[in-house]
Amino acid sequence: MQTNSLALHTDKYQINMIYAHWMNGTHLRKAVFEAYFRKLPFGNGYAVFAGLERIVSYINNLHFTEQDLAYLAKQEENYKPEFLDLLRSFKFHGSIHSMREGALVFPNEPLIRVEGNIMETQLIETAILNFMNYQTLIATKASRIKQVAEQDVLLEFGTRRAQEADAAVWGARASYISGFDATSNMLAGELFGIPTKGTHAHSWVQLFDNEQEAFEMYAKAMPDQVTLLVDTFDTLKSGVPHAIQTAKHLESIGKRMVGIRLDSGDLAYLSIQARKMLDEAGLDYVKIVASNDLDENTIFNLKAQGAKIDIWGVGTQLITAADQPALGGVYKLVEREKDGKMEPTIKISGNPEKVTTPGKKEVYRIISSGSNKAIADYINLPHEENPKAGGKLKLINPLHPYLQKTVKHFNAVKLLEPIFVEGKLVYELPTLEQIRDYHKEQMQLFWPEYLRKLNPEIYRVSLSQETLDMKQKLLEAYLEPDLEE
Amino acid sequence: MQTNSLALHTDKYQINMIYAHWMNGTHLRKAVFEAYFRKLPFGNGYAVFAGLERIVSYINNLHFTEQDLAYLAKQEENYKPEFLDLLRSFKFHGSIHSMREGALVFPNEPLIRVEGNIMETQLIETAILNFMNYQTLIATKASRIKQVAEQDVLLEFGTRRAQEADAAVWGARASYISGFDATSNMLAGELFGIPTKGTHAHSWVQLFDNEQEAFEMYAKAMPDQVTLLVDTFDTLKSGVPHAIQTAKHLESIGKRMVGIRLDSGDLAYLSIQARKMLDEAGLDYVKIVASNDLDENTIFNLKAQGAKIDIWGVGTQLITAADQPALGGVYKLVEREKDGKMEPTIKISGNPEKVTTPGKKEVYRIISSGSNKAIADYINLPHEENPKAGGKLKLINPLHPYLQKTVKHFNAVKLLEPIFVEGKLVYELPTLEQIRDYHKEQMQLFWPEYLRKLNPEIYRVSLSQETLDMKQKLLEAYLEPDLEE
Repeated sequence: MQTNSLALHTDKYQINMIYAHWMNGTHLRKAVFEAYFRKLPFGNGYAVFAGLERIVSYINNLHFTEQDLAYLAKQEENYKPEFLDLLRSFKFHGSIHSMREGALVFPNEPLIRVEGNIMETQLIETAILNFMNYQTLIATKASRIKQVAEQDVLLEFGTRRAQEADAAVWGARASYISGFDATSNMLAGELFGIPTKGTHAHSWVQLFDNEQEAFEMYAKAMPDQVTLLVDTFDTLKSGVPHAIQTAKHLESIGKRMVGIRLDSGDLAYLSIQARKMLDEAGLDYVKIVASNDLDENTIFNLKAQGAKIDIWGVGTQLITAADQPALGGVYKLVEREKDGKMEPTIKISGNPEKVTTPGKKEVYRIISSGSNKAIADYINLPHEENPKAGGKLKLINPLHPYLQKTVKHFNAVKLLEPIFVEGKLVYELPTLEQIRDYHKEQMQLFWPEYLRKLNPEIYRVSLSQETLDMKQKLLEAYLEPDLEE
Repeated sequence: MQTNSLALHTDKYQINMIYAHWMNGTHLRKAVFEAYFRKLPFGNGYAVFAGLERIVSYINNLHFTEQDLAYLAKQEENYKPEFLDLLRSFKFHGSIHSMREGALVFPNEPLIRVEGNIMETQLIETAILNFMNYQTLIATKASRIKQVAEQDVLLEFGTRRAQEADAAVWGARASYISGFDATSNMLAGELFGIPTKGTHAHSWVQLFDNEQEAFEMYAKAMPDQVTLLVDTFDTLKSGVPHAIQTAKHLESIGKRMVGIRLDSGDLAYLSIQARKMLDEAGLDYVKIVASNDLDENTIFNLKAQGAKIDIWGVGTQLITAADQPALGGVYKLVEREKDGKMEPTIKISGNPEKVTTPGKKEVYRIISSGSNKAIADYINLPHEENPKAGGKLKLINPLHPYLQKTVKHFNAVKLLEPIFVEGKLVYELPTLEQIRDYHKEQMQLFWPEYLRKLNPEIYRVSLSQETLDMKQKLLEAYLEPDLEE
């Protein structure tokens, strides 16, 4: 999936802006950008941050190959050769802070903060958003599914419907972060150490003269891993009886069949009937796997109808996040260098939600000392420092500043971790198991009201008074003179 | 984007089935699979086939690396070492026929036909579907957009919202096949020779003290490539007047500004007003580019409202095919070897649309000799040969066989091209420009009724009488005995 360098996995306007800055002599001025999203996907109450490992590998390998430079030399923009020399020696020397993968994150808080010169901070925008947007989207979708599946086993089965190869493998990883148990994609298994699972297809059955023979042959070949797909002809009249017969053969050689898989029809009815038939045959240990366009809503409803399904194979709906296939993450300038000093900057918009919050920012999760549950996220400016445990903290709703709340007895946990400092990787990438554990801890930090699938309570993301005041000041300062010119 | 081999970019059940066949001694039996979809996406009247170049490169590089084999050796299935040796020496020796990229294709006709031993035909199913499904989906979405944009320029701007890196670059290529003019993704430009385009971002403006200075600096740096984003502060009060001033400066040095870009607000109103302002300033040559969550419906409506937009930048909605982010392409067994001979095979389903059509098949496009327009696609068995020009041809609707139509005076064009024959690549990959030209020709072959965006006429895909009879016979033969067992 990864080439040595993805330097050109960027929008042309990044290259053009870098070129124009270089022509103007401004390309080495410092800038701070923050990546965030404005709206949660799927009507969910939270998102699950993912994509950092991919971003780290991207930054570590980031350079322009001679082939890249030869390609750039042929562009209609006629970039000067000296500019291409500059790119030839390019390395990322900036700093990146990021949420940890698996973290619960919310709208309008910086998830990734990039500091460096204009050249390096612009170049990486596109790829960072591409990775963060997709992986965070899928981790969030997977988390919704995990919430309704509860203790059932969840398998990611989406590769054939994924949006190309990278989506299949990185989507499998994102699903695993949020609590999926395995994937069918072997490359994802190889690359990331995710457990892999697979049964058999209808073609297995079709390649034999009848279903019973097909089942027996499969069981003979892999006696310890037998999960039989029972809907090739007729689930209850043919598939399940044949599977029961095979399970009995397996018992006679001291083996236990793992499961049967339902892949069409009414999964509630069929699973209840199949469970009965299996139990009556003394096969209560045989699990029932279901697949067929499942998502959190179908699983929720099937469970409500008493479906007897132990293992869910989830494909298309998860791997494409079908009900909302893009997270609208953006990457916005919040500080720029002027006359050798950093100053906050704002982007105005007719749409109030699109006005940026100026200034380089920190994010804290405010956790009640009593309940040990998250109360709010709190955004302030670095010099304001960590909100003091034991002190009082005013939480202001940034869109409706009259909505305020004061908390005492809290801990404040800083969420943005240093990943690169002046080009050097300072972050030790956690294992995937550590990321899963961190995600589980994160989930436990939140009251169920914030986590429910439908109409969740809105979690509070507050700005410090100083951040709000600065935003207000810049709004006035930037907007007025420009319009009066 | 491409590793040397994507052998493990497959579902585990493929490996398990291959293993079980090997254990049973049946892995070298011959099989024929066909890939197709059952339902057109977006309510469209056709799909645009894409993905073949990626598939050819995948098949050409297909082998198991030592790392792959070491990974497989650790699986819970405990594959025998002799099996891993078999994989070590694996090469694809089968045959593949395929539609050409850019072809208009329809439901339930084979788009790709794979013939070979069970092992090789199963292994490649997942990757072939993954590539074909995504690229065909995006080419189809892009074609819908092209239809409403007509002669306007179309730019693919979706990378940051694409579902990971492969989707960005292969999606850019698929869009270009269907008539997009350029992409913003530089890697897609480098890999495929697609023209690339880019303007500048809001951050460009924010990095200067005011919009006028920002515009002047950009124009100074790239005087031949100036397209200015005019909505950072206020499109009509600030952005357009400043852009006009810059255009006048450019004129004074003998240059012409290329365009302005609108990225928010009411694009119909703003473009009409901006056009007026530009024209009144004598800048009728300055183009108006629009972006902001566009798709075929918004473009159609904007044009209907008289929007003065020359160039459309299309992002999220295209690159994720947001209204239907997966094409449900499947890969089904149609023939198997039995006792040394090939025989057709069927997959039954309670859902009539899901019953497969048995037998290895050819697809012909039946073209009226009079109008030179396509009348129907016609599927038959290879020994039936090419429907004779000048003869009579009965076109039967396979789901409703009483719906028939007889045509004379036609040409029959065979659609499935040989790509690999017994492992050898026999197909010369066309250039991307040739693919675009072929796609344009294909579009001209169809009456507009089949091509319209909303409620298109349904194009007829017919089965030969012999294919239908065989299907009926197998339905009866397969279904009954199994249920009565």
